[in-house]
Amino acid sequence: MPAKSPVLVDLKFDPAMIAKVLKTAFADRGSINLADPASKGVDLSHVDYALLWKPDADIFERAPNLKVIFSGGAGVDSMMSIAGLPDIPIVRFVDRSLTVRMSEWVVMQCLMHLRDVPGHFRNQRQRVWVPQDGPEAGDVTVGVMGLGVLGCDAAAKLKVMGFNVIGWSRNKKQIDGMETFDAGELDTFLARTDILVGLLPLTPETTGLYDASLFSRLRRDGALGKPVFINAGRGKSQVQADIASAIGTGVLGGASLDVFTVEPLAADDPLWGLENVIITPHDSAMSEERALFRYVEEQIARFERGVPLLHLVDRGRGY
Amino acid sequence: MPAKSPVLVDLKFDPAMIAKVLKTAFADRGSINLADPASKGVDLSHVDYALLWKPDADIFERAPNLKVIFSGGAGVDSMMSIAGLPDIPIVRFVDRSLTVRMSEWVVMQCLMHLRDVPGHFRNQRQRVWVPQDGPEAGDVTVGVMGLGVLGCDAAAKLKVMGFNVIGWSRNKKQIDGMETFDAGELDTFLARTDILVGLLPLTPETTGLYDASLFSRLRRDGALGKPVFINAGRGKSQVQADIASAIGTGVLGGASLDVFTVEPLAADDPLWGLENVIITPHDSAMSEERALFRYVEEQIARFERGVPLLHLVDRGRGY
Ligand SMILES: NC(=O)c1ccc[n+]([C@@H]2O[C@H](COP(=O)([O-])OP(=O)(O)OC[C@H]3O[C@@H](n4cnc5c(N)ncnc54)[C@H](OP(=O)(O)O)[C@@H]3O)[C@@H](O)[C@H]2O)c1
Ligand SMILES: NC(=O)c1ccc[n+]([C@@H]2O[C@H](COP(=O)([O-])OP(=O)(O)OC[C@H]3O[C@@H](n4cnc5c(N)ncnc54)[C@H](OP(=O)(O)O)[C@@H]3O)[C@@H](O)[C@H]2O)c1
Repeated sequence: MPAKSPVLVDLKFDPAMIAKVLKTAFADRGSINLADPASKGVDLSHVDYALLWKPDADIFERAPNLKVIFSGGAGVDSMMSIAGLPDIPIVRFVDRSLTVRMSEWVVMQCLMHLRDVPGHFRNQRQRVWVPQDGPEAGDVTVGVMGLGVLGCDAAAKLKVMGFNVIGWSRNKKQIDGMETFDAGELDTFLARTDILVGLLPLTPETTGLYDASLFSRLRRDGALGKPVFINAGRGKSQVQADIASAIGTGVLGGASLDVFTVEPLAADDPLWGLENVIITPHDSAMSEERALFRYVEEQIARFERGVPLLHLVDRGRGY
Repeated sequence: MPAKSPVLVDLKFDPAMIAKVLKTAFADRGSINLADPASKGVDLSHVDYALLWKPDADIFERAPNLKVIFSGGAGVDSMMSIAGLPDIPIVRFVDRSLTVRMSEWVVMQCLMHLRDVPGHFRNQRQRVWVPQDGPEAGDVTVGVMGLGVLGCDAAAKLKVMGFNVIGWSRNKKQIDGMETFDAGELDTFLARTDILVGLLPLTPETTGLYDASLFSRLRRDGALGKPVFINAGRGKSQVQADIASAIGTGVLGGASLDVFTVEPLAADDPLWGLENVIITPHDSAMSEERALFRYVEEQIARFERGVPLLHLVDRGRGY
């Protein structure tokens, strides 16, 4: 039996963590970690599988015989834009723990706006006692944009917490106890939404989607007074200057952002300092290395047994 | 048919709101609002029903012929300590909306400690980008003290969010998918708990229960590093100075407090300024006046039809 091809790894995560966890991963075939200086100039022409996150631009030139590409994250937008992306299966990372953590973040952010946590924190800093009598979750409609793995899990948990939840996706979905809308029904969906939760992949169609015009179409007479924008999909789906100005003019009452057009968010960006804007540094649901390597091992095993790969990216749709 | 006895109302909530909502409540029998100057000196000897929250100390002298007392809140501790409390049924307020809002608060506070919201807010104020890679909910055990109406609802929702949840109550409870402990198993319960959620009534037994000794018995090697104390029951169940010092010495890693020994919390109290202590001004789940008046109307109708009253307080237990 010929030696198994090692897995090419180019993950722009925490390099020390990758190096550490790689030591015990892919025991049967080994790996080539591009972050390791020893791999500089190494011949990659025999490599079958690559696990990538924001890889080097020349990666596909150096490894021209790949059979499958694995994405280090749930989104593949950074991969799709690389010149010379070969026409082979691309598998994205779908993980129970990542999904659970994203829903933690989404539910927490919705509750923080519902219960005015920014206002409570201001009062706490000023040491003033001001009880607030806000609406309950059932008086507020959360509109989830993107009903994939992440959107569906978050929507179900938001419902359990009492929110009224509606959803929007390219193709209409049938989901128990939830009203859903398809791409063509965007305006109806927005007019019903008090808290917008963005869990869309970045594609040409979703680039710049969250802009001033979209914010102005959200419900304005809801129980929160003003609509709230929450995004944990991808930063390039939002027109960032429009968020800051919509907060300034009162078109939006608040926002929670985990993703940004350019990351890290620049220290002088006005978003950091805005009232009712909650910033998290793209850590709502990070890929966990051990789970990722195990996932890739399992998928390679499927592939080599001739069983179909799971969570394949549709090149035409871009996600 | 003799005229129906009006409902005596002495609710130390927002007086303007009470006056407004009372106008349309108890249409068939009317009410006497003690906050109304016109009611000063009025004869209350004929009154059958009283709806009370922190009532005047002489209330039972002035209304000696009450048949039922209704509490304006879920807890009855402030009523139980009034001298001359007559030996008649006391009904506490149990309300779907109040329960939902309490669970919103509890789930949000647990998530805020899990996801280190205080740390994220500090980083946001300093405009620094520091992704954090914390545990997921399933790595953390929330121990709920008090498995009544509120504790059970909160526990179920914490489970849906992925937390490992255990519970403690006076008498052992059988709850699907949840390990429970009774009063005698307190130490075992505490040793397993990373985030302690207090949803106990205030009684002689629960007075001063959350103290330095209890905090020191919480799990110290959990995924959060240090245990967290959350209280939305009653402030007098906590030894407040012990919370501040446990945060200072690192026995506790954080706290969320909605209730305090003396309310409002004094402006010079050290708790306002402590790292990782989240203060809310007893507004986690306020009684909603309209729902409260409707609830009392329904219970009076039951009582007058000879149907047993719901949610009766057990005088012996004190809740
Ligand atoms: N912030 C973070 O840390 C983080 C972590 C993980 C993932 N993410 C982001 O979250 C995204 C979603 O992840 P997922 O696993 O839920 O993806 P998924 O399962 O592929 O679901 C994507 C959803 O978006 C919908 N959609 C895509 N393009 C659309 C369009 N043009 N119009 C309307 N709906 C559209 C899809 O509609 P159909 O159902 O009709 O196809 C689908 O419901 C990822 O792509 C990634 O960018 C962020
Ligand atoms: N912060 C707020 O805004 C707010 C709002 C509403 C209520 N509250 C507080 O929350 C409390 C709980 O409300 P609830 O409706 O859930 O009350 P409940 O239904 O009466 O439940 C009380 C629970 O506490 C347990 N318990 C009582 N004394 C105990 C003791 N000595 N040792 C162990 N367990 C004990 C009971 O055990 P058993 O099941 O064995 O009897 C029961 O499980 C109220 O009393 C009120 O003080 C606060």
